[in-house]
Amino acid sequence: MKSNSKSRMSREERAEQIVSIGKELMLKKGYGFTAKDIANAIGISETMIYCIFPNKKKIIEAIYSKIFTSVEILGIPKEASENYRTELIDYFICFYKNVTERNMLEFHYLYAMDKSGNRPDLSLIEKSAPNLNGPLENYIISGINKGYFRKVNAESAAEFIYSAFFNFVFFHELFLREKLSAEELKCKISTFIDLFINGINKI
Amino acid sequence: MKSNSKSRMSREERAEQIVSIGKELMLKKGYGFTAKDIANAIGISETMIYCIFPNKKKIIEAIYSKIFTSVEILGIPKEASENYRTELIDYFICFYKNVTERNMLEFHYLYAMDKSGNRPDLSLIEKSAPNLNGPLENYIISGINKGYFRKVNAESAAEFIYSAFFNFVFFHELFLREKLSAEELKCKISTFIDLFINGINKI
Repeated sequence: MKSNSKSRMSREERAEQIVSIGKELMLKKGYGFTAKDIANAIGISETMIYCIFPNKKKIIEAIYSKIFTSVEILGIPKEASENYRTELIDYFICFYKNVTERNMLEFHYLYAMDKSGNRPDLSLIEKSAPNLNGPLENYIISGINKGYFRKVNAESAAEFIYSAFFNFVFFHELFLREKLSAEELKCKISTFIDLFINGINKI
Repeated sequence: MKSNSKSRMSREERAEQIVSIGKELMLKKGYGFTAKDIANAIGISETMIYCIFPNKKKIIEAIYSKIFTSVEILGIPKEASENYRTELIDYFICFYKNVTERNMLEFHYLYAMDKSGNRPDLSLIEKSAPNLNGPLENYIISGINKGYFRKVNAESAAEFIYSAFFNFVFFHELFLREKLSAEELKCKISTFIDLFINGINKI
């Protein structure tokens, strides 16, 4: 197996393999993993790693961008329709599954405080964060323009619903390690969306 | 100084000193700190530490309970009044200051993944978490009973607003390390509360 993995791989395939193993190691060790760890796990030389990635920072960037690109693809409709309640519920269910399958939250945590107690490289998080909040903001703006939503600060509204939801995922998945059934998830998300749309005020 | 700190301290004062130094060490080193580290920092013997706290876990519990007790004291009014918007804004401003002054979020992070990559002791967090969410839930129930709020799931509503707010504090304070001025803070919180009360729906 090891000799097989050494040969007959294109540069792209090898890069993908390094990123994939690197991700596993990062989840286990945080920033503390080395190029040598990856080389050993694959069964290739450290030199071969550096032929593809000039340094460890580039490997981390590749791990990070791979994860976030997949979330970006998800997206939500650019234009709010009159079915915005259903659209938002679908979006958040999709987002939840994506986040939990890919253990994105683990990364947020590892980034927050690495093994040596250093602060994470925030530029990587900042680069990716707008991908999650931005589409939601555009969606709210379109809803305001179409007269579906009252006039609100779209940026704050996007931050508000995203924050509530993100913290909810984080709490259930990371802290409680509690897997919600598809039905429980839909019920919980629907309640959040309903609160977001109608508020608590007595009409 | 050292000899002075050795003597003329009551058991309570000494316990407080151990917890205070322990907190600093925990922020720096995570779970990795030892009773010996605390003893060295104060300038007393390790044995004296163990006279007061039987083991390290008890020291961590004392650190944790001290922090959360102070948040619990904050509270919000038990009964919602017609000025509930102002009450909620005041509460969250107070909560924000308390959280950031006491670096509570750092603790959440340290607890999430300690230096050895182990999961934190969740029972400590769970014990304290209801103290933050519970008063908010009671407040919402009282508002519904008084006819100020429409009929909503009070538990979800409390979780929703608390989550949005908690993630906001966490993002600004821990990730961006961005100190908000008192005015920016009030503006931001007011917008969140307004969204929570009125939603985005066009009335």
